[in-house]
Amino acid sequence: MQIAVVLFDRFTALDAVGPYETLGRLPDAETVFVAERAGPVRTDTGNLALTADRTLADVPAPDIVVVPGGPGQNSQMENETLLDWLRTADGTSTWTTSVCTGSLLLAAAGLLEGRRATSHWLALDFLARFGAEATGERVVTDGKYVTAAGVSSGIDMGLTLLGRIAGDDHARAVQLLTEYDPQPPYDAGSPDKAPAHLVEEFRSASRFILT
Amino acid sequence: MQIAVVLFDRFTALDAVGPYETLGRLPDAETVFVAERAGPVRTDTGNLALTADRTLADVPAPDIVVVPGGPGQNSQMENETLLDWLRTADGTSTWTTSVCTGSLLLAAAGLLEGRRATSHWLALDFLARFGAEATGERVVTDGKYVTAAGVSSGIDMGLTLLGRIAGDDHARAVQLLTEYDPQPPYDAGSPDKAPAHLVEEFRSASRFILT
Repeated sequence: MQIAVVLFDRFTALDAVGPYETLGRLPDAETVFVAERAGPVRTDTGNLALTADRTLADVPAPDIVVVPGGPGQNSQMENETLLDWLRTADGTSTWTTSVCTGSLLLAAAGLLEGRRATSHWLALDFLARFGAEATGERVVTDGKYVTAAGVSSGIDMGLTLLGRIAGDDHARAVQLLTEYDPQPPYDAGSPDKAPAHLVEEFRSASRFILT
Repeated sequence: MQIAVVLFDRFTALDAVGPYETLGRLPDAETVFVAERAGPVRTDTGNLALTADRTLADVPAPDIVVVPGGPGQNSQMENETLLDWLRTADGTSTWTTSVCTGSLLLAAAGLLEGRRATSHWLALDFLARFGAEATGERVVTDGKYVTAAGVSSGIDMGLTLLGRIAGDDHARAVQLLTEYDPQPPYDAGSPDKAPAHLVEEFRSASRFILT
């Protein structure tokens, strides 16, 4: 079983590392980080690079595709090299997945039309414009498409899919080893729970970005 | 404000990326990934490398030190280059922190003697042998030392310290943007909650590792 995690300039690190650290613990699976060009790929902060060990062309038919999001997703929405690769890989994949605004890339490739899907809470309206039924749920499975909400939700997505493929006991073992027993010091992780002024501030700012 | 995240061969990626993605969003802070040698550093799975942009020697006096853990920590316990750097950096740091078995490296450097601290649940006994008061809590603050439990707990640690330094509202904003509203599909993230047979299996296996 081969899992391909797609990197691009200014992706969000945790979007990619959450599924890698959970789903990547599938027995007998090989996780490969891929990008248009092999080598270090910088994250959105500019302070970190993850290495793409292989090019997209090197890995044409992974069993599982994982597409992270991040501010850099905007610049990829018309990158036909990436979108073509997504369509081709999806043609033979068992699971096609995304975290955060990675779902916008799946949608731009035409893969989510008419499907239930999710994205970062600030990107749900944008996702709907591509014909997806955008839900605010944290992890959404529609057929072989599994999409997750913002950034940290890739951990929940990874464990969910891990359980589906390798069984509940294996997923519980990975949850235990990664000590995923969340105790956030605040309860502000969704627009329903965060202070209204923060939600409004980010909604206003995002109008200039997601157009 | 400078945040140094220390990398070493076979660290666990999420240990480092959790604090980077939360604490690293401190206003006016620069996060720097450092290692003995600059360049790509492989994680415990071998399938991913993060780039250390600077050497330890390049970054002698960060304001915040973050030490991740992972299987590779064992090979660093007598690495005097790293331990000396930790002691020196700690001499001027405002906060010295760890995730997972990273606390064993702080302890090996002599920094946790007589202090309350935590670690991965499988490493708590080992931590106590260094004279730390090992607790099973998820995030432990003792003076300027902030230690977190296994792997994913670095997210909670990062938000906790972020709130302490930059205020609750800023930490809530980062929680909202990273959509950290955890909904694990299982409730097996700690030895108190996971099925007993899994806990026992890992305890037995770890006896050969942590000695």
